[in-house]
Amino acid sequence: MTTESNADAPAELLDRARRDYKELTARGLKLDLTRGKPAPEQLDLSEGLLSLPGDRHHAPDGTDVRNYGGLRGLPELREIFSDVLQVPADRLLAAGNSSLELMHDCLVHAFLSVLPGAETRWADQERIAFLCPVPGYDRHFALTERFGIEMIPVPMDDSGPDMDVVERLVAEDPAVKGIWCVPKYSNPNGVVYGDETIARLARMTTAAPDFRIFWDNAYAAHHLTDEPVEIADLSAACAESGNPDRPFVFGSTSKITFAGAGVGFFGSSTANVDWLTANSSKRSIGPDKVNQLRHLLFLRDAEGLRIHMERQRSLLQPKFDTVQRILEAELGGTGLAEWTTPTGGYFVTLEVGEGCAKEVVRRAAEAGIVLTPAGATHPYGDDPRDATIRIAPSFPSLEELEKAMLGLTTCVRLVGYEKRHGN
Amino acid sequence: MTTESNADAPAELLDRARRDYKELTARGLKLDLTRGKPAPEQLDLSEGLLSLPGDRHHAPDGTDVRNYGGLRGLPELREIFSDVLQVPADRLLAAGNSSLELMHDCLVHAFLSVLPGAETRWADQERIAFLCPVPGYDRHFALTERFGIEMIPVPMDDSGPDMDVVERLVAEDPAVKGIWCVPKYSNPNGVVYGDETIARLARMTTAAPDFRIFWDNAYAAHHLTDEPVEIADLSAACAESGNPDRPFVFGSTSKITFAGAGVGFFGSSTANVDWLTANSSKRSIGPDKVNQLRHLLFLRDAEGLRIHMERQRSLLQPKFDTVQRILEAELGGTGLAEWTTPTGGYFVTLEVGEGCAKEVVRRAAEAGIVLTPAGATHPYGDDPRDATIRIAPSFPSLEELEKAMLGLTTCVRLVGYEKRHGN
Repeated sequence: MTTESNADAPAELLDRARRDYKELTARGLKLDLTRGKPAPEQLDLSEGLLSLPGDRHHAPDGTDVRNYGGLRGLPELREIFSDVLQVPADRLLAAGNSSLELMHDCLVHAFLSVLPGAETRWADQERIAFLCPVPGYDRHFALTERFGIEMIPVPMDDSGPDMDVVERLVAEDPAVKGIWCVPKYSNPNGVVYGDETIARLARMTTAAPDFRIFWDNAYAAHHLTDEPVEIADLSAACAESGNPDRPFVFGSTSKITFAGAGVGFFGSSTANVDWLTANSSKRSIGPDKVNQLRHLLFLRDAEGLRIHMERQRSLLQPKFDTVQRILEAELGGTGLAEWTTPTGGYFVTLEVGEGCAKEVVRRAAEAGIVLTPAGATHPYGDDPRDATIRIAPSFPSLEELEKAMLGLTTCVRLVGYEKRHGN
Repeated sequence: MTTESNADAPAELLDRARRDYKELTARGLKLDLTRGKPAPEQLDLSEGLLSLPGDRHHAPDGTDVRNYGGLRGLPELREIFSDVLQVPADRLLAAGNSSLELMHDCLVHAFLSVLPGAETRWADQERIAFLCPVPGYDRHFALTERFGIEMIPVPMDDSGPDMDVVERLVAEDPAVKGIWCVPKYSNPNGVVYGDETIARLARMTTAAPDFRIFWDNAYAAHHLTDEPVEIADLSAACAESGNPDRPFVFGSTSKITFAGAGVGFFGSSTANVDWLTANSSKRSIGPDKVNQLRHLLFLRDAEGLRIHMERQRSLLQPKFDTVQRILEAELGGTGLAEWTTPTGGYFVTLEVGEGCAKEVVRRAAEAGIVLTPAGATHPYGDDPRDATIRIAPSFPSLEELEKAMLGLTTCVRLVGYEKRHGN
């Protein structure tokens, strides 16, 4: 895709890129496109949380939220997120301030307790492997690596992981215990899993009796267009296929309310929920129910959540539009890059020429524009084509974002044309 | 102690106990002395938290507490708890809503990563054992048991665990990796660790190079008298003895502000703090800093904490006085029981006749008074003498507590006199 057509680009394209890059570095920028952090304006949308629950300290069911207990979280809050996460409220847990920690703890408990359907603890097995659709989320990979789980990359297409590859790997290798999925507006390439992909994930035969789909539905409510995407219901499909315990569904309000002070959710089969609750009960006497009541009073119901996410979109959409506009204006028709046009989520994936990503990131850093390290989108930080760059447009202001994108595209031109000219 | 003197109690003592018990059961009580939960009035003392941080969302150092990051917690809050937990603020982490989960996670990471000073992960060792001073805290024991750690009971005296036993066990057995300690106003017997005990814990020779003292200083600020107890500084003593990595210090505001929505703390050597932080960084992008700012604004400083705990004491002390008054009035001089008179913390330990505790708890339950299960104070729920009962006076109102204590002492008399009479 990037190595096409105008390999005969006139030297003046390279000269212009070099001049632009020199100007860029002279400007002494200090910009950051690394992480999917909400901007202060997005956080301001939830400012009301800061003085809630005010003079209330009882949940609707009468629970004193200030005291111990309530390991499954407030039922009324779980109700709000039941639809969007596609898990009935009675099988959905509301927990602490992060879904990542729920994923971590599920791995921990799988290693140190016996999962429903498992024969032994993972700690007692010689080898554990996970399928990692690429490009993917670096924190998933870091978690997997931390526990010594072998990561097997799986290519993605426009409707999710390549299911021929997935089905073959899970069928033949009993050490393959899981797969990481961000099914809606995937991190980083914005892919929405297709119905057939989800159906195949649900019904495929796995050699491991305790295979789990880590379904990180982080962007379930994070639309960027007028047409909110719906995906197929994995939990229902798994149950219908006789694999009710296969999905672990995760979600959080980190990118809905406050990134550091939201609520995480876990949903699954009754057996899995009981398993996690039993293990969690040794760890904690209950989650922060005051924060859950705070969220309940603030969001009110599923419609309140929808309206709130419209407000989020009104702040995010212009940023994603800016990214598209500048990519098109600066790189369109150059043959130097391709990029995604996500309809939701937090990221744009920029594919530069093979062997160019690290150099683009290095040149951008020299010019004061910090990007997620090239390779972070792949297991072990190893992008074999060295071509994928993740752009996180949410945090900078529109003005900063414009500067950063112009700088980034300058670096792409510089590195791309240098490569063409053999420099 | 309980099997003394008036074995010649006249039958009328038993008759009276039987009449009293019959009356008691007829009253249809529904009282609960099981858990060390704060009473609603205690939680009311922190009602101000419910509308904090109000219109602020920046920590004193400029951090936007609503966003990701800040894995070590707000420095200013750590500063408040540094003195009382005896750990310098730069080696003290402020985390989530519970210290129990920090203890859990330290065990998890010791099993799945290599501890500073360790040769291998605990998961790769055949046997791991912990010393459990008895009576002790049932949630510690549940945690240890959950990870398949062998529990070795160690007797306690008035100044902590029997150090002759501890020193012998840690010196001879490299599988002994830890000891549970609640050093101040211990759960459940209110013991305060003596200076010499702490000095010996710090300097003793351990066969395991990665031995850790799990120092659960849960009641560090929870005094019940005009003379707040100070204990020796374990961390300093360990450092002086050349064992800086030995202590893991835990604390929380669960019984200071809100039991379900407080802040947990972990303090240790730089190596241990870095080890936990590195492991936590895979699990979470940071704790709930909004809640930490809330606590900072509410408590203000160490003096604010001290004043707040005086208010807690004014609510708790009358309850502990009631327990003592009724125990003395109903059981004093009977030879049926002995009990502790704690100067802080949350519990009173009642020692009834050997073989009587389970029966007392059963009879009390029949009369509608729920007590912590007999045996819960010992590893595996096994109190070999079946004599120890934990009383948690904090949650009931004074009036309920008085009823519950009168009922409990009735059961002690009934079971004690029945036993004397061979029934």
